[in-house]
Amino acid sequence: MAQANARSLLMNVHKKENVSLLSTEAQSPNYRGFFNLGAIILIVANFRLIVENVLKYGFLLQHPVEFINDYLSAPCFLTWLSNIFPAIFAYYLETRQALKISQTLTRLIQFILQCYILIMPLCVISHYKVHFVPAFLLLTYHLIVSLKLYSFGSVMYEAREAYATKEYLNYPAEIKEVIAKYPNFTNITHFIYFLFYPTMCFQFHYPRTQRIRKTWLFKRIFEFIISSSLMLILIQQYITPLLKNTIKVLEEENINYVILLERHLKLCLPNLYLWLILFYSSFQCQFNILSEITRFADREFYKEWWNSRTLGEYWRTWNLPVHNWLLRHVYFPMVNKKYGKTFSMLVTFLLSAVAHEYMVSGACRILTYWAFLAMMSQIPMIVIGDIFKKQLEKSQIGNVVFWVLFCMIGQPIIVIIITHQAYIGSKS
Amino acid sequence: MAQANARSLLMNVHKKENVSLLSTEAQSPNYRGFFNLGAIILIVANFRLIVENVLKYGFLLQHPVEFINDYLSAPCFLTWLSNIFPAIFAYYLETRQALKISQTLTRLIQFILQCYILIMPLCVISHYKVHFVPAFLLLTYHLIVSLKLYSFGSVMYEAREAYATKEYLNYPAEIKEVIAKYPNFTNITHFIYFLFYPTMCFQFHYPRTQRIRKTWLFKRIFEFIISSSLMLILIQQYITPLLKNTIKVLEEENINYVILLERHLKLCLPNLYLWLILFYSSFQCQFNILSEITRFADREFYKEWWNSRTLGEYWRTWNLPVHNWLLRHVYFPMVNKKYGKTFSMLVTFLLSAVAHEYMVSGACRILTYWAFLAMMSQIPMIVIGDIFKKQLEKSQIGNVVFWVLFCMIGQPIIVIIITHQAYIGSKS
Repeated sequence: MAQANARSLLMNVHKKENVSLLSTEAQSPNYRGFFNLGAIILIVANFRLIVENVLKYGFLLQHPVEFINDYLSAPCFLTWLSNIFPAIFAYYLETRQALKISQTLTRLIQFILQCYILIMPLCVISHYKVHFVPAFLLLTYHLIVSLKLYSFGSVMYEAREAYATKEYLNYPAEIKEVIAKYPNFTNITHFIYFLFYPTMCFQFHYPRTQRIRKTWLFKRIFEFIISSSLMLILIQQYITPLLKNTIKVLEEENINYVILLERHLKLCLPNLYLWLILFYSSFQCQFNILSEITRFADREFYKEWWNSRTLGEYWRTWNLPVHNWLLRHVYFPMVNKKYGKTFSMLVTFLLSAVAHEYMVSGACRILTYWAFLAMMSQIPMIVIGDIFKKQLEKSQIGNVVFWVLFCMIGQPIIVIIITHQAYIGSKS
Repeated sequence: MAQANARSLLMNVHKKENVSLLSTEAQSPNYRGFFNLGAIILIVANFRLIVENVLKYGFLLQHPVEFINDYLSAPCFLTWLSNIFPAIFAYYLETRQALKISQTLTRLIQFILQCYILIMPLCVISHYKVHFVPAFLLLTYHLIVSLKLYSFGSVMYEAREAYATKEYLNYPAEIKEVIAKYPNFTNITHFIYFLFYPTMCFQFHYPRTQRIRKTWLFKRIFEFIISSSLMLILIQQYITPLLKNTIKVLEEENINYVILLERHLKLCLPNLYLWLILFYSSFQCQFNILSEITRFADREFYKEWWNSRTLGEYWRTWNLPVHNWLLRHVYFPMVNKKYGKTFSMLVTFLLSAVAHEYMVSGACRILTYWAFLAMMSQIPMIVIGDIFKKQLEKSQIGNVVFWVLFCMIGQPIIVIIITHQAYIGSKS
């Protein structure tokens, strides 16, 4: 329309061939605006659900007194604190007593100690009928302490062995130096620090930071408070009423599967958000807060698990503290003892499944096998994923399948099943 | 973990400083997986709404007989067909009669013809109480014919003027050649083709394609059928019950604004989808089908309006046939007559607002001013957008504001208001 100062007659609008932008013949138009629109739709759709939820239920957040009663469980807190005794006992055992008794006896005492650490919280939770959330947290912390002490015991055992057989003389300088100091491999300060480090793997040396960055630390603490509050709102305002409704549907004689599907789909989103915030709150906030305070420098607690193309990739990347522990203390020791790689992997996964069941069943106060089954059912999917690994490399299909299987199908189903089991358990 | 064949003791997991990927210190991690997750959430959230809708309303699609009765209105169809008479009359007027009568008289007859074309369908719709959808389509087609004939009349008028004043001798060769053939500037075949071309601007020559690509054409027809069906489902299954509920809320004595907000938010999405599909169905499918059949080669019916950073940009890019017509026959002629650019722009926009009101009020069979107001209220926003144009250039904020203002706030409000007005109209 350059000839603006002329007659319409001379303003030819159609001068040449053109294709429509949305036709396949068009040369890569820029769709960035639709990306923005998608993000807006997401926000609007979620905002509508919030308004709908308030209209339907009002505000469901617990009364603070009730909340403190439920969540701040004194027995749990005391049990958690009491962990210091088995820990100190383990330190004493490994640094003093082990020199006087046989290696086998030391390992046996260690095993009894592990059992005590893992069983004691179950008794407390069962006796005091502790709420799911603090119970789950307590079991998680006890599991962590147990894994830490196992790692500590193994490393100390190997250090004594290496000293006895003089094998340590061929070790790298750093380790050789430590073992040469027999029997004083380590000291109580390092051990106490280890208990607070966000890692389960005991080492004689860790990378450390120079100083505590106070502003940085307070930002993480602020994020932790915000994310914890969000989780609380999600659980009390969205997930709990949804699950109550779902239980009703499941308790009817003729289950209406369309309604059940609708409940499942409705549960998907708050459950997914809870899961993402839980991850952020634990792996980003909590672990970084702990690291900053203890000046622990290796902050790689997770890799880019959100880009996982297979379930196997997800399990290898989302939780590095546990993944590293399993590799270092289960998988590689088994491979070293000439078990097959697949068998070792299977046992590792089995152990992880048992640990998941321990936390879920323990916190629900009813022994089920659903968390275990949910974990084990992933093995065939992981195998299938590994078979098609090469084909999935360059496409996003694997990642989409991962999200759908894991967050849209798997997690909501297992949450519904476990809630239902816990409901049946509480009735009988 | 390279030293796989060694003791745990030697497998140091934590060797160096690392930052967590989600920390701001991390070097640009790849978040592609979250993009996939967002897309999945969108699909799941919409799928849930579909299931919820079916559970609540069952299937609301009309009985075919009722549908034919409502949508395939015989009076509308006949009125639409009858457009050929004023069109042929206009051709006769401009090519034969205009040579014998004065230019002014020709323009007057043209004006009466325009009025006839625009008023006649209003009478038909009002008399036969035609359903909104066919009424809206009929008014749109009549408006198009009217704009086409205006363009034809203007160009022919200017051609005669140019011949009379010999001004045409300075014109580009292509146009000069045409005008030299006075009085036979054009022929009836070209004129009939023009009526079917997807453009409102009359030219003596258009770019044409070599042949009709049949497979391509059938693909577009298939897309058109699919998109029309989707629109029908959206209107009957989602938007109509929602609007009925919203009217109930508005008719209550004390309007509950939270419920109204929830209704608005719920209307947003199906309304947006309807709007996007309507755009695709018209501008991509219909216009390309017409173009392919008439071998019209300039298929640029829209630009990348979805990337608009201001409302002004949107109005300049989403509907090029109308935009080009307004520029060629309203804006530039006014600028040529030394009206200010802003004033000319304002008048152009005003005309467009009147045209919108014509279609909406006509199809609702009640004279309102809401579509007009909705258009005019955009002028200050367009002005603000143009002021901040430079600042908006490199960010996505402008585009986000555009989508929110236009699709999330503006359109649903205007749809609710017009439905309410039509409801009040139908009661009285």
